[in-house]
Amino acid sequence: MSVAAAQRDEPVRSALEQAQALVAEDMARVNRLILEKLQSEVALIPELARHLIAAGGKRIRPMLALLSARLCGYPGEDHVALATAVEFIHTATLLHDDVVDDSELRRGRASANALWGNKAPVLVGDFLFSRAFQLLVSVGHLEVLGILADASAEIAEGEVQQLVTANDTGTSEEAYLAMITGKTAALFRAACELGAAVAGRPRAERLALRAYGEALGVAFQLIDDALDYSAREAELGKAVGDDFREGKITLPILVAFSKGDERERAFWRRTLEKVEQSEADLVEAQRILARHRAIEATIARAEAYGRTAKEALSIFPRSPARDALAGLVDFCVHRAY
Amino acid sequence: MSVAAAQRDEPVRSALEQAQALVAEDMARVNRLILEKLQSEVALIPELARHLIAAGGKRIRPMLALLSARLCGYPGEDHVALATAVEFIHTATLLHDDVVDDSELRRGRASANALWGNKAPVLVGDFLFSRAFQLLVSVGHLEVLGILADASAEIAEGEVQQLVTANDTGTSEEAYLAMITGKTAALFRAACELGAAVAGRPRAERLALRAYGEALGVAFQLIDDALDYSAREAELGKAVGDDFREGKITLPILVAFSKGDERERAFWRRTLEKVEQSEADLVEAQRILARHRAIEATIARAEAYGRTAKEALSIFPRSPARDALAGLVDFCVHRAY
Repeated sequence: MSVAAAQRDEPVRSALEQAQALVAEDMARVNRLILEKLQSEVALIPELARHLIAAGGKRIRPMLALLSARLCGYPGEDHVALATAVEFIHTATLLHDDVVDDSELRRGRASANALWGNKAPVLVGDFLFSRAFQLLVSVGHLEVLGILADASAEIAEGEVQQLVTANDTGTSEEAYLAMITGKTAALFRAACELGAAVAGRPRAERLALRAYGEALGVAFQLIDDALDYSAREAELGKAVGDDFREGKITLPILVAFSKGDERERAFWRRTLEKVEQSEADLVEAQRILARHRAIEATIARAEAYGRTAKEALSIFPRSPARDALAGLVDFCVHRAY
Repeated sequence: MSVAAAQRDEPVRSALEQAQALVAEDMARVNRLILEKLQSEVALIPELARHLIAAGGKRIRPMLALLSARLCGYPGEDHVALATAVEFIHTATLLHDDVVDDSELRRGRASANALWGNKAPVLVGDFLFSRAFQLLVSVGHLEVLGILADASAEIAEGEVQQLVTANDTGTSEEAYLAMITGKTAALFRAACELGAAVAGRPRAERLALRAYGEALGVAFQLIDDALDYSAREAELGKAVGDDFREGKITLPILVAFSKGDERERAFWRRTLEKVEQSEADLVEAQRILARHRAIEATIARAEAYGRTAKEALSIFPRSPARDALAGLVDFCVHRAY
């Protein structure tokens, strides 16, 4: 992180904390419902799922569902189940993603597949996915079910697209953005839309919250991609350079590749396409990214998406929930973890 | 297969064909809907999914949904979407199961993970699962959604249970039956219940179709387990002895283990618990199973479940659909593939 980013850290953390404080009571109910719905006669299921869910994470996606419901003046109780379903779907994708990526660390702890192999995480992910739909059925709101079924299909498409574009330095920025819109932003968007849908708000508000969520999700993923090369490992809670070692094509790479000379392009092709890497290559990659200010360009892009997200909120009157959603944009764009 | 079983082959095949003929038109629509709903901008998804779905299979699960709807006099169109959703969920579990089992053959062709690695099949399975729920949402029938969400959770629980009991010769028959009820019979049961639910039939008919489907599913899995040791490979469409090589504990093993002497138990512990196997061990396993008539005992158990399934149908007046469902019991219990 740059010095400037480090200085920004405090207000940024407090934006997250303010949002958390606003929905703290609801989130406590979400956490209780998570533990309740993880129960199964098959003891390995709660054991494995709890490893990941209890590790915490920032709970941004369920928070978005809770804040959106609040923003829309939803007076009922169902938002708690919806937020729980969102977190279950997110956790299922993490479990399946870890199998795919074979990553060693997740949220600062050993990943589920490092502990249990590839088998159990796939199946426990399926269980969580099913539980999410059971929860949605119990809420009995078809529109809401459709929102999350659509998002789930889109996530899977984005993840498959990521496989297809992995190791391809010829990926276009457009294809990259479409891919992260699917794999990350679709669930952010769905979480936000749920709030308006369950509150029965008019279409304009639904679309505004969709637009907010999608732009926020893209910004979130762009920062994720930047942090993979620039974060301090202890803060990030996972290994720096994971994307590089897997040959993942992310925006920093696309920026540096497009600006790079033939020698640099040969470096990216060897390390990311052929995934032939030596110990020193990550540092060299970081050096090339710095030369082209690729991390800064990625952050700038995230900031632009962040502005789009905030603008989308403008149709709502100012309220603590709207301020919290706007604050989450600042957090997602300027976070160091 | 014994000579007697081979002689039974003809009427058995014809029972399947009669059921197929009765719903041929509906099944053609299911097949069209499958292809339509496999579409995605991500080309790998239909490519991979079609590999498995187009390979055919017997389509027993969607056939059960179609026949149950017919039995219940359902006059509408939604049963086609429901049957498609059932096949999607089944295919998703196959894709995830192949990752889990690393099996080499599925429906006589190379398994998806042998061709595409572990990554893509997990994600395409997630896509199919999501598509199934999108289809159900489009039908707009909450009860039906609940039936399939419940079944999906139960399948995942059964699969995880299978992991837990794998390689454990101390597994009780009770635990084994609970496990196959989850991993196999839950979807048979759900497919049958859907027909009554979508037709709005009274609870007694729903319960009868649930009972039929569950007993049929257990019988189907028991025969699967028997065939893994006794089938002719060309007919089965997958390698004989897969379960043995993976150390799977199935009913034939539990029967032989309980009747075996210490030398035989040591053999099972070495081959199935430690999975230390030599080339000749499968033949030795088959010899021990034959000595204790374990395959015959497994088939007898399947026949008992088959009788339970047929009895459950007795509350319905006789009709071509009921005859077809009864015929499917004969097929499932006496099939050689």
